[in-house]
Amino acid sequence: MSNKISVGILGATGVVGQRFIQMLERHPWFEVAWLAASDRSEGKTYAEAAKWRLRTAIPPAVASMKVSPAIPDGAPKVIFAALDASIAAEMEPRFADAGCAVVSNSSALRMQSDVPLVIPEVNGGHIKLIDVQGWRKKSGGFVVTNPNCSAIGLVLALVPLHQRFELDTVMAVTMQAVSGAGYPGVASLDILGNVIPFIRNEEEKMEEETRKLLGQLNGSKVIPGAFAMSAQCNRVAVEDGHTESVSVRLKTKAKADEIIAAWSSYRAEPQELKLPSAPERPVVYLSASDRPQPRFDIDLGAGMTTAVGRLRPCGVLDWKFTVLSHNTIRGAAGAAVLNAELLKAKGYLG
Amino acid sequence: MSNKISVGILGATGVVGQRFIQMLERHPWFEVAWLAASDRSEGKTYAEAAKWRLRTAIPPAVASMKVSPAIPDGAPKVIFAALDASIAAEMEPRFADAGCAVVSNSSALRMQSDVPLVIPEVNGGHIKLIDVQGWRKKSGGFVVTNPNCSAIGLVLALVPLHQRFELDTVMAVTMQAVSGAGYPGVASLDILGNVIPFIRNEEEKMEEETRKLLGQLNGSKVIPGAFAMSAQCNRVAVEDGHTESVSVRLKTKAKADEIIAAWSSYRAEPQELKLPSAPERPVVYLSASDRPQPRFDIDLGAGMTTAVGRLRPCGVLDWKFTVLSHNTIRGAAGAAVLNAELLKAKGYLG
Amino acid sequence: MSNKISVGILGATGVVGQRFIQMLERHPWFEVAWLAASDRSEGKTYAEAAKWRLRTAIPPAVASMKVSPAIPDGAPKVIFAALDASIAAEMEPRFADAGCAVVSNSSALRMQSDVPLVIPEVNGGHIKLIDVQGWRKKSGGFVVTNPNCSAIGLVLALVPLHQRFELDTVMAVTMQAVSGAGYPGVASLDILGNVIPFIRNEEEKMEEETRKLLGQLNGSKVIPGAFAMSAQCNRVAVEDGHTESVSVRLKTKAKADEIIAAWSSYRAEPQELKLPSAPERPVVYLSASDRPQPRFDIDLGAGMTTAVGRLRPCGVLDWKFTVLSHNTIRGAAGAAVLNAELLKAKGYLG
Amino acid sequence: MSNKISVGILGATGVVGQRFIQMLERHPWFEVAWLAASDRSEGKTYAEAAKWRLRTAIPPAVASMKVSPAIPDGAPKVIFAALDASIAAEMEPRFADAGCAVVSNSSALRMQSDVPLVIPEVNGGHIKLIDVQGWRKKSGGFVVTNPNCSAIGLVLALVPLHQRFELDTVMAVTMQAVSGAGYPGVASLDILGNVIPFIRNEEEKMEEETRKLLGQLNGSKVIPGAFAMSAQCNRVAVEDGHTESVSVRLKTKAKADEIIAAWSSYRAEPQELKLPSAPERPVVYLSASDRPQPRFDIDLGAGMTTAVGRLRPCGVLDWKFTVLSHNTIRGAAGAAVLNAELLKAKGYLG
Repeated sequence: MSNKISVGILGATGVVGQRFIQMLERHPWFEVAWLAASDRSEGKTYAEAAKWRLRTAIPPAVASMKVSPAIPDGAPKVIFAALDASIAAEMEPRFADAGCAVVSNSSALRMQSDVPLVIPEVNGGHIKLIDVQGWRKKSGGFVVTNPNCSAIGLVLALVPLHQRFELDTVMAVTMQAVSGAGYPGVASLDILGNVIPFIRNEEEKMEEETRKLLGQLNGSKVIPGAFAMSAQCNRVAVEDGHTESVSVRLKTKAKADEIIAAWSSYRAEPQELKLPSAPERPVVYLSASDRPQPRFDIDLGAGMTTAVGRLRPCGVLDWKFTVLSHNTIRGAAGAAVLNAELLKAKGYLG
Repeated sequence: MSNKISVGILGATGVVGQRFIQMLERHPWFEVAWLAASDRSEGKTYAEAAKWRLRTAIPPAVASMKVSPAIPDGAPKVIFAALDASIAAEMEPRFADAGCAVVSNSSALRMQSDVPLVIPEVNGGHIKLIDVQGWRKKSGGFVVTNPNCSAIGLVLALVPLHQRFELDTVMAVTMQAVSGAGYPGVASLDILGNVIPFIRNEEEKMEEETRKLLGQLNGSKVIPGAFAMSAQCNRVAVEDGHTESVSVRLKTKAKADEIIAAWSSYRAEPQELKLPSAPERPVVYLSASDRPQPRFDIDLGAGMTTAVGRLRPCGVLDWKFTVLSHNTIRGAAGAAVLNAELLKAKGYLG
Repeated sequence: MSNKISVGILGATGVVGQRFIQMLERHPWFEVAWLAASDRSEGKTYAEAAKWRLRTAIPPAVASMKVSPAIPDGAPKVIFAALDASIAAEMEPRFADAGCAVVSNSSALRMQSDVPLVIPEVNGGHIKLIDVQGWRKKSGGFVVTNPNCSAIGLVLALVPLHQRFELDTVMAVTMQAVSGAGYPGVASLDILGNVIPFIRNEEEKMEEETRKLLGQLNGSKVIPGAFAMSAQCNRVAVEDGHTESVSVRLKTKAKADEIIAAWSSYRAEPQELKLPSAPERPVVYLSASDRPQPRFDIDLGAGMTTAVGRLRPCGVLDWKFTVLSHNTIRGAAGAAVLNAELLKAKGYLG
Repeated sequence: MSNKISVGILGATGVVGQRFIQMLERHPWFEVAWLAASDRSEGKTYAEAAKWRLRTAIPPAVASMKVSPAIPDGAPKVIFAALDASIAAEMEPRFADAGCAVVSNSSALRMQSDVPLVIPEVNGGHIKLIDVQGWRKKSGGFVVTNPNCSAIGLVLALVPLHQRFELDTVMAVTMQAVSGAGYPGVASLDILGNVIPFIRNEEEKMEEETRKLLGQLNGSKVIPGAFAMSAQCNRVAVEDGHTESVSVRLKTKAKADEIIAAWSSYRAEPQELKLPSAPERPVVYLSASDRPQPRFDIDLGAGMTTAVGRLRPCGVLDWKFTVLSHNTIRGAAGAAVLNAELLKAKGYLG
């Protein structure tokens, strides 16, 4: 019998839910033991319920698993949640209340002051916020969240600069993949030969989440990062991988080679702890003049590495560069799995 | 017999050359009488030489026209030039020297101090630079240029703001269509499901051309606009239409409705003169939350109107918004045709 | 006051409904006076209710029109129907029963023995089936249908061959545009970089509709065409335009130039009657070795002409060739409008 | 020191050359020791010369390898050739003449009567043709070829049917990926939102190669398969993976389950010999109603398995179905590597 930790997945049939299943297939610590999705799926096997949209096959053990009702009764104590925000707002507290560790990819609770919003390489220390959560005190349950798929790649590229040179100003324009909108998500009639210059609430999320992630934990709350920030979000005809054109002003002036060194040498707790899903290098700088590109570079570090390229002076701020991150791995399922690994390493998963 | 002005086209078989032919098919003032392309095409009929890539048919009169050698001998006195920069650098001076009015879409001479870089709605007055050109003095010939396809949409969106509120800072990130790279241009293997975050020399052109276009003519030279500017250029899987995410800081603070009014009410010399290719409105603001989009909005004003949308406050500069412009009409062939119309109206075409 | 015939549109907000509105904007005989869509849209203006997906603007008169409930009460006597089959099956009979001329694009009633399935250039005479309809006898109302978007282009290419050489066998493989699936229709995650080798019920429709269209009206029923037929249907990443690879065996052997002549010279009743939406030429043969192509050839005859190309001998049947047809114009809205024009010309619209 | 067989690659920088390098990176028997490409690349390192277009990185040992002149002098005795046909026609004989085993992906010599055209799972016995080659007798060198990328998937799907039920007639319509045209290959302006119904010489190759592959070796020549065959070839906006809509008539009538059993149980010499690149199953039948699809199914068997689906009765022939094959792995580089493995197993590589 396996002595892995049993985990459940809320929203198991969606694009991110599928990535959870794919990433957990051979996970050394966790084992998928329970799946829930919308009422429509209940009682079906996972293979019947999910319109599987990944290139690897559904893991056989999961394919035949029955989809459970989305209630804490009978669910494992560790829950990965990949729910729409409106549903998550109700359901995640219910599971935390029932004593579950809810590792969430949803935006619903990210900005709640007692909920940690965490990228393990950036602000793993914020996990301590768990200790002030009412759920934790009552039942032992808690909620930890990871950021939006467009924020996470950006913040991984920013954190080495922020630590060494301190950010003054950040401007980011995104070109986001359609998988970020889930399934069915973006209609083909909307995106073939097109750019959609609008993603609901996305710019707001990028701006506030970036500041919370790069903020300082101060007792029971996070003081947001003090830099100025502006984001513009666009959808493009790309399957996977969010590309971002970024400009920054730094408080301590830095040369190009110092910036590249900051990225290249960046390592953090997940690398030191050798967490199973941690990439060897959180950030890789590509020196080719026309990289990173989503079609060719999203699989770096098994989709967990953020690629940066095209560093050059900015005529307005100090420097500009391009960032690329896999939006459903590093930007969603992988983000949550790495959060769970950090929780485990820190003793929060019992 | 027609009393239209005979015009020739240099680079007639390329993507922009084809647009010239399409736009001039029923032009009230100009008539295509001569076509030149690379040596390979010489002596063939146009229909044989060109790989026609437009939805409308080749105009019959042009289809059967022989492609001439690219020399001034036998060419008309008005020449539209759609040449690669390296070829244009040699060939455009040769035609100007021989007495031709060269209306160029190439980047080769745009930044030369005695060559006007003109958008008729923006800086038609710069045309006077012609009078200081050596070619003009010698043979009567001259060169007038229009800007890069990514600069022109941007500058049309900026000029109403610059005139009323004065620009302090401009940041632009482009998502450019593949037709901007000519034919065969971008390989399908490079762009399907992809974003290419690099277009050679494009950012430099956008930055310096924008300043020259919004600069002041002072005797025999143009004093560039004094604002700060930074551009980042990306290629996306769109056939036609460059989309840009723009942020600006203005010297005179303005409210959203004042900015929208500045765009909506903007009219200039081409509209007053009712030039045949001038759109009724150079700039149109779209109020839908997710527009403009290249698939749906590039044909506004028959491809000559710049669409703007999504005006909202910027967390770093003052305002941010999205700009869309048809890159091979307003951004290339249409730009040159409108320049020629302005030249005619001002008596420069004899 | 206009003396045009007032018409209504059922399913006015969908992809085909929008094409109806676009095609009827300046129609000489018909005028849109009434719009209905799903309950959700009721009471809104059309501009609010429809997610308009065409490049031309919503006609102003239609934009401000209120969406009516989908009931015959208050509806005009001529109804264009662009409903999903399951809804059409109930709703079209209700309108016919109430005395309306229902000109339908839906598949619901196409194969019903007393319902004419008509392409005016192919089998306009089948319209007489109206006279045996129970609705007609009771209230004067009736239903006329046009074929599936993939059948119509094929049949227009086949009819000149069938009339001169008689079809023995037809094989067709389609590569269909996403607009054929309506909106939102095909998810972008399903079609970017992909081919979907399945469209529900499409092959069955193509096979049986082709035979009914090329069948003989015999009193109160149509004897289907006697040729063998097989269709395979695929979805590809194209916005508009269904492309088909076709092979045929003919009962009378024909040479290539005879076949091309049959296509090129084909004219029928709509051309003789000069119906407003009839293309000058129903079928055009393109001689270039790599045409027709959807991006360049779907607008022939304002989207009403079927393009054929690449005629060459087939190693199994006699001849093979490629067919292209605009699926939302000739294949849907335009088909119905042309049917209505034929009905008017024949006195069926009062 | 490695005791692997040193191999060289002709045309190493192209799309197929890159796949060779990727597939040979950890090959148990072969080791890339020599690379040649066009003159332009000569003397550069491979990393400088190649525009690498794959998601995995260039193997470090290859990245720093110098590109050699394309002459037999100094080349290894085993050569993988990925050349354009016109160049291959000259160069492959030159290497064979110099004693090299040329394992070619080019079409130049495929139909030459003494050159084996081989798919190891289909007609491995044809390799004996080598023995009648003049090169072989003179220098020990020889040429072996693999079929066109569109033929190979088809023939793998046909061979189980041909062996059990004998083919009478085959019709195939392809929807081919752009990578099949090499790099830069298909221009993005030609394929975005489009289908191109023409690939030069492709239909001819499919028809004649299929017959040669399914033919009988009779002494020094191959008697082509006697079935009727017709192919139509289209290019679609897919990066990798050729999809084909196929119809067949069989001499021995078969039921659906017999046909599926024929595919599912098919094994051949490469499976028995456990050749390193042989897929466990050459053909897999997918039972989902809408598969195979290139985006999701091309990686089956590491790109070496042909996927088949949608078996259903054909209204003209007996059965129709969809075939999918990875065009640059099973259809090109992988085909040649498997041929080389078979040659090695049979003692032809010394």
